[in-house]
Amino acid sequence: MSLTPSKRAYVPFVSVEHMMGLVHHIGIEQVLTDLASEIEADFRRWPLFDKTPRVASHSDVGVIELMPTSDGETYGFKYVNGHPKNTAEGLQTVTAFGLLAEVDSGYPTLLSEMTLLTALRTAATSAMAAKHLAPKGARTMAMIGNGAQSEFQCLAFKAVCGIDTVRLYDIDTSATTRCAGNLAANGLTVVECRSGQEAMEGAQIITTCTADKQYATILTDNMVGSGVHINAIGGDCPGKTELHRDILLRSSIFVEYPPQTRVEGEIQQLEHDHAVTELWKVIEGQVSGRTDDRQITLFDSVGFAIEDFSALRYIAKAVKGTPFFTELDMIADPDDPRDLFGMFQRAKS
Amino acid sequence: MSLTPSKRAYVPFVSVEHMMGLVHHIGIEQVLTDLASEIEADFRRWPLFDKTPRVASHSDVGVIELMPTSDGETYGFKYVNGHPKNTAEGLQTVTAFGLLAEVDSGYPTLLSEMTLLTALRTAATSAMAAKHLAPKGARTMAMIGNGAQSEFQCLAFKAVCGIDTVRLYDIDTSATTRCAGNLAANGLTVVECRSGQEAMEGAQIITTCTADKQYATILTDNMVGSGVHINAIGGDCPGKTELHRDILLRSSIFVEYPPQTRVEGEIQQLEHDHAVTELWKVIEGQVSGRTDDRQITLFDSVGFAIEDFSALRYIAKAVKGTPFFTELDMIADPDDPRDLFGMFQRAKS
Repeated sequence: MSLTPSKRAYVPFVSVEHMMGLVHHIGIEQVLTDLASEIEADFRRWPLFDKTPRVASHSDVGVIELMPTSDGETYGFKYVNGHPKNTAEGLQTVTAFGLLAEVDSGYPTLLSEMTLLTALRTAATSAMAAKHLAPKGARTMAMIGNGAQSEFQCLAFKAVCGIDTVRLYDIDTSATTRCAGNLAANGLTVVECRSGQEAMEGAQIITTCTADKQYATILTDNMVGSGVHINAIGGDCPGKTELHRDILLRSSIFVEYPPQTRVEGEIQQLEHDHAVTELWKVIEGQVSGRTDDRQITLFDSVGFAIEDFSALRYIAKAVKGTPFFTELDMIADPDDPRDLFGMFQRAKS
Repeated sequence: MSLTPSKRAYVPFVSVEHMMGLVHHIGIEQVLTDLASEIEADFRRWPLFDKTPRVASHSDVGVIELMPTSDGETYGFKYVNGHPKNTAEGLQTVTAFGLLAEVDSGYPTLLSEMTLLTALRTAATSAMAAKHLAPKGARTMAMIGNGAQSEFQCLAFKAVCGIDTVRLYDIDTSATTRCAGNLAANGLTVVECRSGQEAMEGAQIITTCTADKQYATILTDNMVGSGVHINAIGGDCPGKTELHRDILLRSSIFVEYPPQTRVEGEIQQLEHDHAVTELWKVIEGQVSGRTDDRQITLFDSVGFAIEDFSALRYIAKAVKGTPFFTELDMIADPDDPRDLFGMFQRAKS
């Protein structure tokens, strides 16, 4: 009897090196544009998904989360951690990997790194939301917080929304210098600013992406003029926010999944019944997004499992026929499914 | 700048082939004995674990579950499916893999196949429970249901409890023939039986392990004599049980984690406040297990995340210094943790 595992026993695996190779192969702006389309398409069929708030395991220094979802045919989940103190130890604040499986059999069909993919899907989701909410003709974005996510945000807004100028600010000037350097050859006008206030001059879109695990006030009320779109992505766990409460009270607030955002997003500062709009309803055309030029729109983004699902499905399609994956012998799959022990015993010889 | 990922970017991976090699290298009965010790040690420190019922995604044909836990230092989770109809399609009913991570950093430290490991830990848990609950001097076990789990159960009871005779029964006689054949060279007296009643003759321990996703009655009340220990492992999801309710009413019932067992175990047939004993309290010496010779003890086992945690930690220790793992490039870990984009950009050249 053959000791070679059947085809079903192998799970395609996309390593970090392969993910980088694949994204370079396709082109990062194309990948961001494709991801925005995939995520938008899944937001249009939002009610169909099995939704549950993520399963979080909190410690004093961080959190480890599992984010599962399913569309009835495909199941997906992401493992992701969030440890703000990691940076000081030379480690990533956020690392992640994800998996797809077939609902019908429960067999995994893809395992992929998701540290890089999460950065890409977060940026693509932000830009996709802004396409529906930001003022028409926006060309300039303020980017407050110039950490690991910042370049991806800037490129996504260029590729998806037509942003041509980014104004960078971080309390750590070396972060701004690094971000500006990395963006130099990417066709954006990059302005390094010495304050949040300066970064917002002339910006129609304000993106905040800072990582302290605490209540912080990156934007105060007087800094935000009418008509802008705020893309707030750093406030994404209990006890961690970026915007002053008064800004929230002046804004039309759009969220991914209210039961999760009310616990993790900027709106944890508001009453539990404060009116918010689910983004998928805007995309699907059920409700209006931006309705007037002086309105402040706020996408209070915390990241949702469906975005990871869309990203993993995109990668599963994109790697086919490329050299950017390997096959992992991850599933024990004996010829006779009841003979797991026989498979084990025969492996001895 | 180096493009080689740092050591933290690599996650040790134990494939199915490596798991089989490792278990043969150590010896399966030794592995089962070691696992029973590891699981017992973790049951002794039960209150310390972060416990949550598993996160299940149900479909018409099966279930996909994530089972996380943490002891405050190490985080672990298992992905596992249950699809009874898979067998008819030549696939495994249950496949699984698992992961360990460091709570302090959120970085994964082990990825492992768990289809084989789940079979081993389930058998080790059953035998460990029986060591505390079965009548003293038990030598004969009835094994009802001779599927993929059965040989592992028989060997665990031999290694941990001193069982020397197993009496096999399955409605499918070919399953019994296969199980008996696989056990032939393992030092057990194996008796193939034509009915459940026949299998139970002279048995001090009765193990039931059938896989229908429905209420079934594998054991009826008149079949079960006084003084036996019942190890019921097949009833492990809502709507799936194996024992007649009357047997439960005559038994002292021991469970892993009541909030999960009341939904998934045999006791889903009973009132929600029916008295059950948590197994860890018996092991820790807080409450009595078996108190008299005529008592029927029942371990209503559904499988709990802590058992997987113990098994993964055992494998993480056991593979060190062996050739039974590879290193997966799963975690993006740039030299400068804020420079994820720079790492991506430099990978182009």
